[in-house]
Amino acid sequence: MTDLNQPISGNDLARFSGPNTFMRLPPVDTLAGLDVAVLGIPMDIGTSWRSGTRFGPKQIRSESAMIRPYNMATKAAPFDSLQIADIGDLAINTFSLADSLRIIKESYDAILAQGVTPVAMGGDHSITLPILRAVAAKHGPVALVHVDAHADVNDEMFGEKETHGTVFRRAYEEGLIVPDKTFQIGIRGSGYAASDFTEAAGWGFRQFPAWELWQQNLTEIGSQIRKTIGDHPVYITYDIDSLDPAYAPGTGTPEIGGLTPPQALQLIHALGGVNVVGCDLVEVSPPYDPTGNTALTAANLLFELLCILPGVTSR
Amino acid sequence: MTDLNQPISGNDLARFSGPNTFMRLPPVDTLAGLDVAVLGIPMDIGTSWRSGTRFGPKQIRSESAMIRPYNMATKAAPFDSLQIADIGDLAINTFSLADSLRIIKESYDAILAQGVTPVAMGGDHSITLPILRAVAAKHGPVALVHVDAHADVNDEMFGEKETHGTVFRRAYEEGLIVPDKTFQIGIRGSGYAASDFTEAAGWGFRQFPAWELWQQNLTEIGSQIRKTIGDHPVYITYDIDSLDPAYAPGTGTPEIGGLTPPQALQLIHALGGVNVVGCDLVEVSPPYDPTGNTALTAANLLFELLCILPGVTSR
Amino acid sequence: MTDLNQPISGNDLARFSGPNTFMRLPPVDTLAGLDVAVLGIPMDIGTSWRSGTRFGPKQIRSESAMIRPYNMATKAAPFDSLQIADIGDLAINTFSLADSLRIIKESYDAILAQGVTPVAMGGDHSITLPILRAVAAKHGPVALVHVDAHADVNDEMFGEKETHGTVFRRAYEEGLIVPDKTFQIGIRGSGYAASDFTEAAGWGFRQFPAWELWQQNLTEIGSQIRKTIGDHPVYITYDIDSLDPAYAPGTGTPEIGGLTPPQALQLIHALGGVNVVGCDLVEVSPPYDPTGNTALTAANLLFELLCILPGVTSR
Amino acid sequence: MTDLNQPISGNDLARFSGPNTFMRLPPVDTLAGLDVAVLGIPMDIGTSWRSGTRFGPKQIRSESAMIRPYNMATKAAPFDSLQIADIGDLAINTFSLADSLRIIKESYDAILAQGVTPVAMGGDHSITLPILRAVAAKHGPVALVHVDAHADVNDEMFGEKETHGTVFRRAYEEGLIVPDKTFQIGIRGSGYAASDFTEAAGWGFRQFPAWELWQQNLTEIGSQIRKTIGDHPVYITYDIDSLDPAYAPGTGTPEIGGLTPPQALQLIHALGGVNVVGCDLVEVSPPYDPTGNTALTAANLLFELLCILPGVTSR
Amino acid sequence: MTDLNQPISGNDLARFSGPNTFMRLPPVDTLAGLDVAVLGIPMDIGTSWRSGTRFGPKQIRSESAMIRPYNMATKAAPFDSLQIADIGDLAINTFSLADSLRIIKESYDAILAQGVTPVAMGGDHSITLPILRAVAAKHGPVALVHVDAHADVNDEMFGEKETHGTVFRRAYEEGLIVPDKTFQIGIRGSGYAASDFTEAAGWGFRQFPAWELWQQNLTEIGSQIRKTIGDHPVYITYDIDSLDPAYAPGTGTPEIGGLTPPQALQLIHALGGVNVVGCDLVEVSPPYDPTGNTALTAANLLFELLCILPGVTSR
Amino acid sequence: MTDLNQPISGNDLARFSGPNTFMRLPPVDTLAGLDVAVLGIPMDIGTSWRSGTRFGPKQIRSESAMIRPYNMATKAAPFDSLQIADIGDLAINTFSLADSLRIIKESYDAILAQGVTPVAMGGDHSITLPILRAVAAKHGPVALVHVDAHADVNDEMFGEKETHGTVFRRAYEEGLIVPDKTFQIGIRGSGYAASDFTEAAGWGFRQFPAWELWQQNLTEIGSQIRKTIGDHPVYITYDIDSLDPAYAPGTGTPEIGGLTPPQALQLIHALGGVNVVGCDLVEVSPPYDPTGNTALTAANLLFELLCILPGVTSR
Repeated sequence: MTDLNQPISGNDLARFSGPNTFMRLPPVDTLAGLDVAVLGIPMDIGTSWRSGTRFGPKQIRSESAMIRPYNMATKAAPFDSLQIADIGDLAINTFSLADSLRIIKESYDAILAQGVTPVAMGGDHSITLPILRAVAAKHGPVALVHVDAHADVNDEMFGEKETHGTVFRRAYEEGLIVPDKTFQIGIRGSGYAASDFTEAAGWGFRQFPAWELWQQNLTEIGSQIRKTIGDHPVYITYDIDSLDPAYAPGTGTPEIGGLTPPQALQLIHALGGVNVVGCDLVEVSPPYDPTGNTALTAANLLFELLCILPGVTSR
Repeated sequence: MTDLNQPISGNDLARFSGPNTFMRLPPVDTLAGLDVAVLGIPMDIGTSWRSGTRFGPKQIRSESAMIRPYNMATKAAPFDSLQIADIGDLAINTFSLADSLRIIKESYDAILAQGVTPVAMGGDHSITLPILRAVAAKHGPVALVHVDAHADVNDEMFGEKETHGTVFRRAYEEGLIVPDKTFQIGIRGSGYAASDFTEAAGWGFRQFPAWELWQQNLTEIGSQIRKTIGDHPVYITYDIDSLDPAYAPGTGTPEIGGLTPPQALQLIHALGGVNVVGCDLVEVSPPYDPTGNTALTAANLLFELLCILPGVTSR
Repeated sequence: MTDLNQPISGNDLARFSGPNTFMRLPPVDTLAGLDVAVLGIPMDIGTSWRSGTRFGPKQIRSESAMIRPYNMATKAAPFDSLQIADIGDLAINTFSLADSLRIIKESYDAILAQGVTPVAMGGDHSITLPILRAVAAKHGPVALVHVDAHADVNDEMFGEKETHGTVFRRAYEEGLIVPDKTFQIGIRGSGYAASDFTEAAGWGFRQFPAWELWQQNLTEIGSQIRKTIGDHPVYITYDIDSLDPAYAPGTGTPEIGGLTPPQALQLIHALGGVNVVGCDLVEVSPPYDPTGNTALTAANLLFELLCILPGVTSR
Repeated sequence: MTDLNQPISGNDLARFSGPNTFMRLPPVDTLAGLDVAVLGIPMDIGTSWRSGTRFGPKQIRSESAMIRPYNMATKAAPFDSLQIADIGDLAINTFSLADSLRIIKESYDAILAQGVTPVAMGGDHSITLPILRAVAAKHGPVALVHVDAHADVNDEMFGEKETHGTVFRRAYEEGLIVPDKTFQIGIRGSGYAASDFTEAAGWGFRQFPAWELWQQNLTEIGSQIRKTIGDHPVYITYDIDSLDPAYAPGTGTPEIGGLTPPQALQLIHALGGVNVVGCDLVEVSPPYDPTGNTALTAANLLFELLCILPGVTSR
Repeated sequence: MTDLNQPISGNDLARFSGPNTFMRLPPVDTLAGLDVAVLGIPMDIGTSWRSGTRFGPKQIRSESAMIRPYNMATKAAPFDSLQIADIGDLAINTFSLADSLRIIKESYDAILAQGVTPVAMGGDHSITLPILRAVAAKHGPVALVHVDAHADVNDEMFGEKETHGTVFRRAYEEGLIVPDKTFQIGIRGSGYAASDFTEAAGWGFRQFPAWELWQQNLTEIGSQIRKTIGDHPVYITYDIDSLDPAYAPGTGTPEIGGLTPPQALQLIHALGGVNVVGCDLVEVSPPYDPTGNTALTAANLLFELLCILPGVTSR
Repeated sequence: MTDLNQPISGNDLARFSGPNTFMRLPPVDTLAGLDVAVLGIPMDIGTSWRSGTRFGPKQIRSESAMIRPYNMATKAAPFDSLQIADIGDLAINTFSLADSLRIIKESYDAILAQGVTPVAMGGDHSITLPILRAVAAKHGPVALVHVDAHADVNDEMFGEKETHGTVFRRAYEEGLIVPDKTFQIGIRGSGYAASDFTEAAGWGFRQFPAWELWQQNLTEIGSQIRKTIGDHPVYITYDIDSLDPAYAPGTGTPEIGGLTPPQALQLIHALGGVNVVGCDLVEVSPPYDPTGNTALTAANLLFELLCILPGVTSR
């Protein structure tokens, strides 16, 4: 364990000090030797309502300084067995969504070529399409756990095929995901027609609207999902707006009646053991939450995702 | 359906554009042809603690731009069968509470004379007394669903008989409501004596204190209320402070331990089928919630209320 | 009852007026004749992450103006039988933690010598160690109800033995508390090792991690705690970060997945009847919650604690 | 000097502690023995745009804790020779502007009858009309120094004769002020017609529009005003919106291009020696400035006004 | 004058009511009969640092409700002689900067074809390039008054030729502006080399760096510019970040040491009489100024620009 | 120049990306080869009013991403000739002011032993005493340019000799500074007696109270100071509260009537050529300015200070 990166301890350096990396892990410039790369994809030009997610990675890193390396609830200790580092931000083109998506795809190809598991901090949800393209190129069509207020299965928005609202239709059409191992959890809100949800159900997607989950413990649903996925490689994409805006006001398209953090944690805990090949946490918009609690929540969810990566041990 | 007003679609015009009307419905100057009039009553001079609700209608309209016309959970499509428009704000007298209440009463008389169902965005809760006077003049004493942190049954405040805390005592005394079809849901907090609540119970009001509802699904209670009301004309008055301040910090007299948005939605969903003759959503105070999430919640609750108006179809 | 202090009524003086004392009780300079002294301990130099709790007492007092003297849920009327006043703030040394803790100890010795029950508004949690020293000197080792996100049982922080994270290890070591009558409720988050929690369990502390409480009514757990404590003198220390940050963003070391206000209220209600000899509410940091709702919550919890003090009657 | 009230020193009690009175002066319940009474008039129901000034006195007091008793620039030491206290807030009727104005008039009659100089913290500017009525009843028509963005000489607003925009027309009509000893400084912004300003000029008012003052030192203008007033009793009414919104964002009707704090201080310094019989500082609206800097500015201007009261000595 | 649109008076309808149009002018769907069209171009995908300007038009309109129709300082009365309306927002493509610029160009062609003078509320500064293309197509190369913290003459950013930082190089290269009638006022901050400014000077641009303007009255400079322009058609583009961030914190790329509002007003006043063929006010980012004062300033500057349009009369 | 560190260009990596170092310079762990070390001293336990400066370095770094490497006004290019890096934060003891001051002294001894010029981001002003101790040990008594709202020459506060208000009395007593080459610029506000300022004047300090500087260009004063200092080693300590709170609301002890950023820049520009041996910028408190503009100002002032370091070339 002595060779593995460890977060700076709050007992060694005051938490308000140190590098602004995820959990104050070492910043690195190379993928060599890494098992897991935490990275930022700071972008908001794929969003349709409030912008601001370009500052998401920065604030998530800032708030992550509070997190210690051991998971008291699950006993997972991700830094005991995996080499994890913060590789910084992708150099996206902030003036072109199309070009940025291309850059993400190529960057992920490079990461995956090294056998490194990518854990991304968004950015708006449009980043997940090029990520899935790279992931599927590496692993074949993947199972998908998609936690979100929105199904993001529009065909187009303002004539554009690739935005934060069209990701999973594209992923389905392009065969990047396994439809009957695709789970959409927390979707809700208003729409244009029943088909906004039912069409994806017709493709095989399993949907768990928020209203069926209210006041429920999500452990059981998480366990069922885990069993259905089995050993298949799985990608987890976590939109912070899956949570109720009370818990995550700092986001671009909030919808009332969302999940609670206990539900979010129950779900991730229950997924422990699936074969995660990558994950992301998207749509944190700092200008809409100066308290930083949205980013704090995001940082914690990312830590919980680290805790269920393959190879993580507990003590 | 082609003749009915529709909200501007987010696919036609970016959500941050367009008129600042409720759900970006057409603004109209006339009641002619309307089934439902959404209107603002921007006022805060009837409040006893924090002011600011004079900006409530403006912010509710602004946040309502996120809402699409179809209710995914209940399948209601209010714009399929009803002609709905935003008729703007009443021209209250911001220097005189008494005069403003008079203006509201007269304005409502005019709206109701046209057979239009009024859906109001407050404004502090004092607006509901003149509304009920007009509604009762039209429909006779109505059933009342009153969702609130406070019973608002004071006799007077600073010697005044008509304020945001005396509304429902006045309504009872004036025979505007049917006491045993009056329901107060979510009331809580501290008071001066047990009689703060029990006196109204003695009149016949049915009370559901928040502490009896915590961690509960409100579907069953909503169903019971619906059955008790039967076909009687019912007015629904929704004080945003019925919700816990975590969900609605932007309000004038917050009380901890309130309802959750899932409970608010379960309640409204369960009321589907009652004979709503009008409704309001009050006490949104924008200066106390710059994130806009209080107003977003208010906008959604108003949409949910539209979805249970008589004549709304589903698909 | 005519001789007992009463909060200024909102019907006598508008709530935004009057002295900035707790619940607008009379400010007093003497302990003579008091049963209960509400006091502020404005301090933040014992905190490790965000500061700001030095303004906690001021904002709690400000928000407490909303609270009326009668508890609608429990029917308790603390001002009917107890003489309660706000004795202002302790004159701590804002440049020295060690000296401030000494001042607190001596101040509490003086308060307890008069037979007055102290109810403190923090300040960071480091205040509770000198308080417990004084309380134990008066009453012997006490039972402890400790509601918090953190166990606060570190051995040292930056080489210091007395900070907001070491309080209860010190209290245990010094024999200030009865280990098997010590209850830690709401603890959660990440740590360094399982021993962060288990060591204290080994001392006899009873721990209720938040994840075992999610979505639960805490009435039953509160009742069990009450029975275990029996008639033993008990000190209650309430860290506002026990609540989820959605309810209490204004705090120094927020942790997601916390308790809800209904749970907090259920717990306190269930503790009615224990022999409370003092209590505190700590870690309210106003700069991180300009809405004031964190302080409003704190003020309400303090009122609920007043309502279960020995000798409080109900009506 | 030992008998005179002194602000609590920041070296005796940390500034974030102590009573929430102006400059932490003693709160008193009686006018007996006072030379000067600082008081709050917490009200916002006379305002036409943003509300919130009902919390003005509370925040001004809070921020005033920073101010020490000696004026470094002018060497004035108001607490060396005058007995000054904070007498709390007037118990206005928050539901009725007319009744509140009556209460203010009667309260001021009582204060002035004791020979006490009143220094008021507003509240919206409508408070100044009843104040001037009481002041003129005591002293006869007074000279007036009116620092404001607005002339406040409307005839009526929404049919009302007494609002925050009609004060000085009423004062002129009622003979409360000496027109050719009335000075309006800092007025600016848009209007309805040239007569918005010129009519008052026709009555004899001396106007100093902001645009004539930009980038100027106001010492000379202040001196001219002082000379014109001579020994006549003078009332000073200071609207915080006279300042540019950069310095005072927390106000109800901000206008760009306003005075700077150096100009405000130069003006007050230059007025030293006039026969001030009362003054007020109005229109601080805390919800629009959570930083508190608007209130800090107001508190400092009030201290500067105390420093030019008749009888103040310097050292 | 009876046929000309007038802003709703604050004496007819409370300022917090009414349509969210510029100065509460009538919203119109047609250009027919207009002299001047105020319009929004809500966009932020051309910005390089903080986003949020997509909400600029909405907040500018909201704050403009405070402005009355007559300019007290200059006596201009734009609504006396010109038919002015708010034509709403352009329907830009929020996912594509290139497509949005195309839409703006075409929309402006249509506006100009009707002989209507366009007055735009941005949006980031990238909107001005397509505007100038349309304006030059109509009027030929125009004189340009460009008030800004930045020269915006980069060649490219991230390989893109059309962003908010490249506008005026493109305009120069494309011959849209007359170089020696182009004025850049308020530029400042750090750069990459002296050529950041000097190159444009070499093209003929007249530059007035902020540091040469500090503490100065800008009337004289404005007069010189007016004389140099003479009768040539002139376009005025006003970046709110030309002001110091104290006055306009709500912007995307703030630079300290900027102009003051008095300077901004002196400059516009001095330009009265030039032949303005269009203007814009850009870079207001509401999420960075919840007080709304940045937007209030923007609204006032736009009103001042209206006041110097050809044909405006005074009274 | 190729071997010298350069800030990451905004054209290479979007400004919201990259390391959170000052100006996105490389973070380094070693002093070897450096000419200048930028470092953070995150601390707020030496402050007497509002805390929060512990987050100052983090926010200053964040906002510094906007700054480019060339000074347009002065033509200085500090990265052309000096090797500059960000060496991170000192590991202070957040629970002990005394111990933290010891750590700062020892850290500075180590930095100065390497011949590196330290440029510090505070933290509260108490950091400057140990800094001056180390600087004087290296260079002998230094000239001091002290820009501040407060003279910071108290003898003690709450009995403590070393706090943010006693720094320069200690420095004088300990012979760390040359009294007649000590300049205090911008001091103002209220005090306890004239001696608050005059005593230090008696020691030889040259004082420039803010009220003598209002509306003035500070170039001339800066030039006089430069000449008086001559070649003597000089330390520059810049308290952000020297500025008016409109420009820097995010600070702990704001005083109205302060300097403007143009004045701050004029002063630093005029000091070009003095022999700076170190400097700091203190008292930025992020919780009191969520817009970040205070930190942006601080970052710019630090850049301006870099631009006048000995050896900086211009182009």
